[in-house]
Formats: sequence, C-alpha cells, structure tokens
Amino acid sequence: MNAEHKLTIDINSDVGESFGNYTMGDDAAIFSSVSSANVACGFHAGDPSIMLNTCQLAAARGLTVGAHVSYNDFAGFGRRFLDEDPHQLRNDVLYQIGALDAMATAAGTRVAYVKPHGALYNTIVNHREHAEAVVDALVTHGHGLTLLLLPGSIAASLAESAGLPVVYEAFADRGYTPEGTLVSRRQPGAVLHDEQEVVHRMVRLATEGIIEAVDGTEIQVNAGSICVHSDTPGAVSMAAAVRRGLEEAGVTIESFA
Amino acid sequence: MNAEHKLTIDINSDVGESFGNYTMGDDAAIFSSVSSANVACGFHAGDPSIMLNTCQLAAARGLTVGAHVSYNDFAGFGRRFLDEDPHQLRNDVLYQIGALDAMATAAGTRVAYVKPHGALYNTIVNHREHAEAVVDALVTHGHGLTLLLLPGSIAASLAESAGLPVVYEAFADRGYTPEGTLVSRRQPGAVLHDEQEVVHRMVRLATEGIIEAVDGTEIQVNAGSICVHSDTPGAVSMAAAVRRGLEEAGVTIESFA
Amino acid sequence: MNAEHKLTIDINSDVGESFGNYTMGDDAAIFSSVSSANVACGFHAGDPSIMLNTCQLAAARGLTVGAHVSYNDFAGFGRRFLDEDPHQLRNDVLYQIGALDAMATAAGTRVAYVKPHGALYNTIVNHREHAEAVVDALVTHGHGLTLLLLPGSIAASLAESAGLPVVYEAFADRGYTPEGTLVSRRQPGAVLHDEQEVVHRMVRLATEGIIEAVDGTEIQVNAGSICVHSDTPGAVSMAAAVRRGLEEAGVTIESFA
Amino acid sequence: MNAEHKLTIDINSDVGESFGNYTMGDDAAIFSSVSSANVACGFHAGDPSIMLNTCQLAAARGLTVGAHVSYNDFAGFGRRFLDEDPHQLRNDVLYQIGALDAMATAAGTRVAYVKPHGALYNTIVNHREHAEAVVDALVTHGHGLTLLLLPGSIAASLAESAGLPVVYEAFADRGYTPEGTLVSRRQPGAVLHDEQEVVHRMVRLATEGIIEAVDGTEIQVNAGSICVHSDTPGAVSMAAAVRRGLEEAGVTIESFA
Repeated sequence: MNAEHKLTIDINSDVGESFGNYTMGDDAAIFSSVSSANVACGFHAGDPSIMLNTCQLAAARGLTVGAHVSYNDFAGFGRRFLDEDPHQLRNDVLYQIGALDAMATAAGTRVAYVKPHGALYNTIVNHREHAEAVVDALVTHGHGLTLLLLPGSIAASLAESAGLPVVYEAFADRGYTPEGTLVSRRQPGAVLHDEQEVVHRMVRLATEGIIEAVDGTEIQVNAGSICVHSDTPGAVSMAAAVRRGLEEAGVTIESFA
Repeated sequence: MNAEHKLTIDINSDVGESFGNYTMGDDAAIFSSVSSANVACGFHAGDPSIMLNTCQLAAARGLTVGAHVSYNDFAGFGRRFLDEDPHQLRNDVLYQIGALDAMATAAGTRVAYVKPHGALYNTIVNHREHAEAVVDALVTHGHGLTLLLLPGSIAASLAESAGLPVVYEAFADRGYTPEGTLVSRRQPGAVLHDEQEVVHRMVRLATEGIIEAVDGTEIQVNAGSICVHSDTPGAVSMAAAVRRGLEEAGVTIESFA
Repeated sequence: MNAEHKLTIDINSDVGESFGNYTMGDDAAIFSSVSSANVACGFHAGDPSIMLNTCQLAAARGLTVGAHVSYNDFAGFGRRFLDEDPHQLRNDVLYQIGALDAMATAAGTRVAYVKPHGALYNTIVNHREHAEAVVDALVTHGHGLTLLLLPGSIAASLAESAGLPVVYEAFADRGYTPEGTLVSRRQPGAVLHDEQEVVHRMVRLATEGIIEAVDGTEIQVNAGSICVHSDTPGAVSMAAAVRRGLEEAGVTIESFA
Repeated sequence: MNAEHKLTIDINSDVGESFGNYTMGDDAAIFSSVSSANVACGFHAGDPSIMLNTCQLAAARGLTVGAHVSYNDFAGFGRRFLDEDPHQLRNDVLYQIGALDAMATAAGTRVAYVKPHGALYNTIVNHREHAEAVVDALVTHGHGLTLLLLPGSIAASLAESAGLPVVYEAFADRGYTPEGTLVSRRQPGAVLHDEQEVVHRMVRLATEGIIEAVDGTEIQVNAGSICVHSDTPGAVSMAAAVRRGLEEAGVTIESFA
C-alpha cells in the first residue's frame, strides 16, 4: 500500500446520551475507538452540561463532533415516529445544531456533521417530507455540514442534490440483506455478537467495499464510516476490536470531516 | 442639537414568548416601536419555530436580536428562582444562546446581546454565583455579546471586570425609589399607567439622564436602553407613544449593539 | 312531547387548555352552554393548577367532568400522531385519568368519562393497537368510565365489547359526508360558520337523529352528545345559540354520565 | 419479648426512579429488604410505565406504596429548590398523588403515604409556606394518607395539627449531630459505609429508640421507619444486612400504613 492507496475509514458512535443523574453508555471508553462522536442535543437525550462535557472529552481526543438530532420526544428516547409538520421539524433540527455548536465551540471545536437519531434516522430513509426538512435544516445552517446516513436513504439523494456532503455508514454488528438493507431486528441474523466475525466483516468492508449478506451474497457497500454501539453489553470491547482489526489490516481510522 | 451631541437611546422589549398553539403578546405590533428584540429561547417560552419566525420578523425590521435567557422552568415561565448549580446554569445559558443564534443566522442576522429573563434577571442582581454563571456563559461564547441589565446588578460589575460590554436599561412604566431601584410591585407607585407621564419621564431620561423617584427626588439613571412591555393591556400603544415622544424630542432610537 | 318522550342531549367542549401564563379559550363563558367538560390533563395542555381550577368551575356549574387524554406531545398540542408502544400509551392514559381524578375529587366531583384528544382521537378511529390501549386504560381504571367518541371508531366497538359505556358525539359546526364521516378540512363545506344553520342542524339531530350531508343526503347520526368549540372566534356565541335553540325546541341539555 | 412488646419498624426506600430507557437503582433487589416503597411520580423521575411496573412489583411483594412527590424539576432530579407559588405546589403534589394512585390501583393496591423527595423534603423542614402546601395536598386528597418525614420538620407539626398521621424516619447510613439533625454531607461522618456499624445502630434505634451522634452523645430518635438507599454502590447489600440484623434482634419489619 502506498500513499496513493492509503485506506481510511471513519468509526462513529452515539454518545452524550446521559441526562442529569441518569447515565447511559461509557463515552470515555468508547472514545478510545472512534474518530467521530454523534452527540445528543437534548431532544432525545443529553442536557447542556452533558453536551459540553461530551464535546470537551471528544475535543481532547481529537474526535470530530456531529449533532445527533432527533424528533422532540424525550419520553421515547427519540425512537418513536412523530408526525411533525416539516417546517417545525426543520426548525427543531436547526435548534439542536445551534445549541450543540455553542457547546462544541466552547470546547474548542465545531459541529462538523449531522446524524439523525432513532426514528428520525429510519423515517427519512423513505419519508420525503421529513427527509427534506432535515436537508433543509443543514442548508439553512449554511456551514457545509456533512450528513451521515444509511446508503439508499431518500435524504441522501436530496442532500446530494442540495450540494451537501454526504457520508454513508455501515453497521459493524448488523446483518445485511442481499439488497443491502439491514436485517430486521425481528429476524434471525439481525445482530452479530461474535467479535472476530464482526472484525473480519469490517476489515473486508474497509479494504474491499464488500459485506457478506445473510444468505452469503457479497454486496457492495459504499461506506465512509462504521457505526459502533456505545451502550450495549460488550460495546466497548467490540468497538476496540474493530478499530484494532482495521489498523492491523493497514486501515487508518480517520473522520470524514 | 448638532452632530456632536446626537442623542440616541435603545428601546427593547421581550418577544417571541408564544409557544406552539399558545400566543403571547403582539410582536409584530411592538416591533414598530423598538430597536432591540429580546427573543425567548425555549426555556421559559418560545419554541424553535417561534424563535425563527421572531428572528425573521426582527431582521426584516432591522432590529437587533438578543437572547432572552432563562432558568429551565417552562412550567413557571421562568419567573421562579431555581437553585441551580452554577456550572449547569452557565451551560443552560450557553445552550440557549447557541440555539437562538442558529435561528438568528438563518434569519440573516446574529444574536448581539443577552438579557436574562424573569427570576434569573432578578436573582443575578445580588446572587453572585448565578451572576458569575451568566457572565461566564457570555465569556465562554466568545463573540463579545453585550449584557443588558438593571443598573446596580452584581452581574454588571462582574461582566465589566470580564471585559464584556454592558448596557443598562430603564423601565418605561415603573416607579423608582430614591435609591434608583424599582418600587416593589406590592407598593403604590410601582407601575405607571398614564402614557403622557411615561413619555415625559423617558424623554427626560434620554435627554438629561434623570428619572424622578416616587418621592420627587431626581435620580441619575445611566441607561442605554428603555424596556417597554409587549404583553400587558395597552403595551403596544404605550411603546408607540414612548418612541414618538422621544423622536419628537430629537432623540434617535437606535440599538446599542 | 310528554315525559315518556323527554328529549335530552349532552353538549361537550374541550376546556382547561390554558397552561401557566398562557391562556386558551374562555372556559367560564363556554360553561354557560355545555353539560360536559373535557378537561386537559397536562399532556397536550393544562397544568395541575389549571386542572383544579377548571374542575372547580365545572363542579360549581354542575357540569360533568371528563378526562381529555392525549399523546405525550406538549410541544405539538397533542395534534401529531406519535407511534407509541401500546402498553406505554395505555399507561400514559391511565396516568392522565388518575391525575385529573385527584383534581376532580378535590373539586367535589369525579372524572366520569374519557374523550381522547386531537391526534389520539383521530388515530383510534382505525388504529387497532392504539384503540385497544385506550380501551384497556379505561378497563384497567375500573370505575366504569364512559368513552366519548366519533361514531364508527374502531375504539367504540372495542369499548362496547369490553363492556364499557360508549357515547357518540356529533360536531355542531362540521359538514358531514354522505357516509357519515366529517368533511375533510381541506374540502369546501368542512366548517360551518352560520349560527342559524348550525342551530337548525343540531335541533334536527336532537329531535330526529338526522344530519344533512354536504350533498343533501339525509344521514342517520346516533349522537348522545354535541361537541362545540371553545377556542375559535365566535365559539362562545355559537355554543350559546346551539343550547338556546335546542332548549327552545324542547330538548333538555343533560350530560350522559 | 412477648406479644405486648412486639417490636416493629418499617424500612423504606426510594424506587421507581428509572425513566424510559434510563435505568436507576435495582428495585427488584431492594424490594427484598424493605416494607415500604417510595415510588417516583414523574416529576423528578419515573414515567407512567415505570410507575405501573414498580407498583406491580411492590404489590407482588406485599409492600406498601407511597408517593415520592417532588418539585416539578425533571432536569434537576428534584434536587434543586424551586421557589414555587404555594398553591401551585399544592396542586403539583395532588396531581402526582392522583397519577400514582391510578397506577397503584391498577396494580391492586393504593397509595398509602406520601414522602416528599429531594429538595422538597429538605425545604419543608423549615419553609412554612411549602410545608403548608404539602400538608394541604394531603388534606385535600382526603384519603387519610400518612406523611413520612424527618423528625423536627415544620411540615410534621403542621400535618399533626391538621389531623394527618405522621411517621418519622431515620437514615440507616447517615451520621447524626447531637441535636438530632443529619451531619451535613460536607462534614466528616456524614455517611457511614461500614455495614456492621450501620446494622448495630439501626438495631439499637429499633429496640431502644437511641442513635449515637458523631460526638458520642446518645440521642433519642422517634422513628417509625428506616430509610435505606437503593441506588448507591453497596445499597442492596446494606439494605439486606439492616433487615437481617433487625430480624435477628427480634424486630419485625412491617410498614406503618
């Protein structure tokens, strides 16, 4: 491998999801393995102090900070579809980016990208009005923020049409269908628990751009980032294994933004 | 009066205090009279869409936008003291400024100043830790925001020590004690309802720097801004009268920031 | 008309929708015209003090109190579908009934019925899981609460199967399709503004059980209650006219519960 | 010891403090050791589903359910003084009791007592207006609920004057001053970590009514209940040790209500 062919990929994780006295995940531990930090903005998780602390921790590790924006549904952790008016959704997203950016700035960095969270992430795969609302928020914000998304999302094509940088992510521990979508959590093979298998798959993704689907089909996945969990049992160990495996395979872990 | 002695003063009002389906005040009407708009940031009133609409309306009128920051007490409209940890308060204020600034930027302007709201405004007159928290939020934000405050507030002297611009405000329709503080709302003479009297007092303030106290004493008031209400009966008419009276007396209405 | 054929109907309205410093509707005025008060429970509107005041006012007028339960969406005034887990929705409804019942009891009355609000009201017309959740909340509550609903709602048939009393309502100022559903607000004829016309229609409904649809078809409507608005321009006058018209036609206004 | 002198004491703990996806404490484990469960009501912690689950778990164990009522300060976990209007505070408390009682009823039990939480608990020791508000809520509720409190609290004497049953609690792992108040957490000796010492102190309290203060003074403590923590490291083990120690000393663990 030479400079012209330097292999790089980003690793991202959802962090800053504690709230007041409630703790979720072990951000400090996961930060050893990732290059991009999706920081909750107070709508599904996080509060101003958690946000600032998370940005400071991320900045100290040299990580890139992204806004993990959500529907306004704290009670549901942002995991429930909310049939919001698109203009209000656009403004809710803009509010979250602005609030986090003040925290990132205070921590000596800036918000560099946006990753929608939970139900919003899933909804904008095929809900055109909500996808437009998210894209419109980034365009309105006007700082050239990158949108981090699932490949095939309608939001991605809208963002590209709007001239926004888009990065696709793959999920380290999820099974894929032959069509390149995630295996539903109600189906067998949805979540992979074997570290070695996960590492092997991610190395292949980073070096060949291929993931093996549940039926053995080899599918092309165009991913600039790998998403690792932060709050499941074994998450910290899994994330560390993925990073180590990638580095041993000659892949540099580097944020896209 | 010649160019060297051009008299100017700012008029500010609390706006953007509607929320979802709830309407408060008539911002469009009050905007005809003021030069600075204290926009609620979602902690005591306002929501992302109200915030954006208010900033757009203010920008279209050429008004200066300020962040009307509050304790995190939506149920109490920010009018109740909350014994918050100073670090958390600092971060709450910073969050609000950042969120509003994204809206102001989307509206083609920026947040230029901060005016604490309700209980926070009153508390930082003599609560050193909360005053420090507010000042620290502005310093941390780092854009040289002006702090708009009551004269004599401990927060003002802390802000000046920290090198922040500070502007003092007078209240158009409030009575003053001989010591220069506001007459308590539980005392007679606390609120003035006569438009002509209010106009006369504000003209004297702007041209001579003097307000007559309840006991007839003439007191020096160093005010760069006049606060007019937006949501009381007669507020719109009172604000218009104050502006007209000042302009007829040769005073230019102009924001401080 | 003799005692054996005494004609009675209920009139209900949504009330208690103020919140803290925000005022919505003129409950005291509307209370002159209705027999049942749908009181907001804090999830889409209302707060504990508004709830108690509203119950006290309703009790003083001899009105029946109902729980106007909502999705947990204060920011959206309960008007947005929220894809909530049915068990959580059931518990959210139960929580609201219990909270309001403490207020009603303090006011010397009790919660006698439940009317779902906004998006929840519309959703349970054909969303079986959410309809079951609402019905399950009433069954679990165990006090034989009546469910007040749109005719044809799937929730109504589930409630009847569960042995709950069900009352159907008609909307005083809404147009009806020949199929007996409401004309969509996006179509002409959706909302009626002529008081005389509205009164005439409601008298006919109460005395003959018939409403004339937008195309002139006469449809049978089985309604034990008439819903009048409380917060639209002219609402108070419209409600008073409906009540007066009904009484002049010999109809007694009386709650179903 | 004979039947006439049967020694009994209650053990209570704060539970139901999880929220949505956030977990706090191990309620199932602590339930093995306590006789009374202080269940959060959604204002500082808890949500409708957590509340119902907690009541069901408590009922299955034969525990008495109490309402752990709080200031309306979810962001601060109810640990911050909120300068609330006493009428609003009264209504906030009543709302919480009603909501929890619906859940307790659904679980086959009822709310039997009220224990104020966090800042409210501490405030009503000497804040007469807030103490009156809490007592007024219980009187208004009208079901003869017991108030569980710190000895010496002004709320206790107000409750007794109002004819409410009052039970005092001692804290298993806290140091006491010679005056019978808790040693401030900023002082040495505030929190005891030695299980054997804690058990020994609580046995002495239950059998002799005496606790040894930090300076060795023996003080009379009139406590019908012992409060054990649920969410600190070692809490479950400490609670189990206290119960076992008491039972071995011939003390029956039994709720007061």
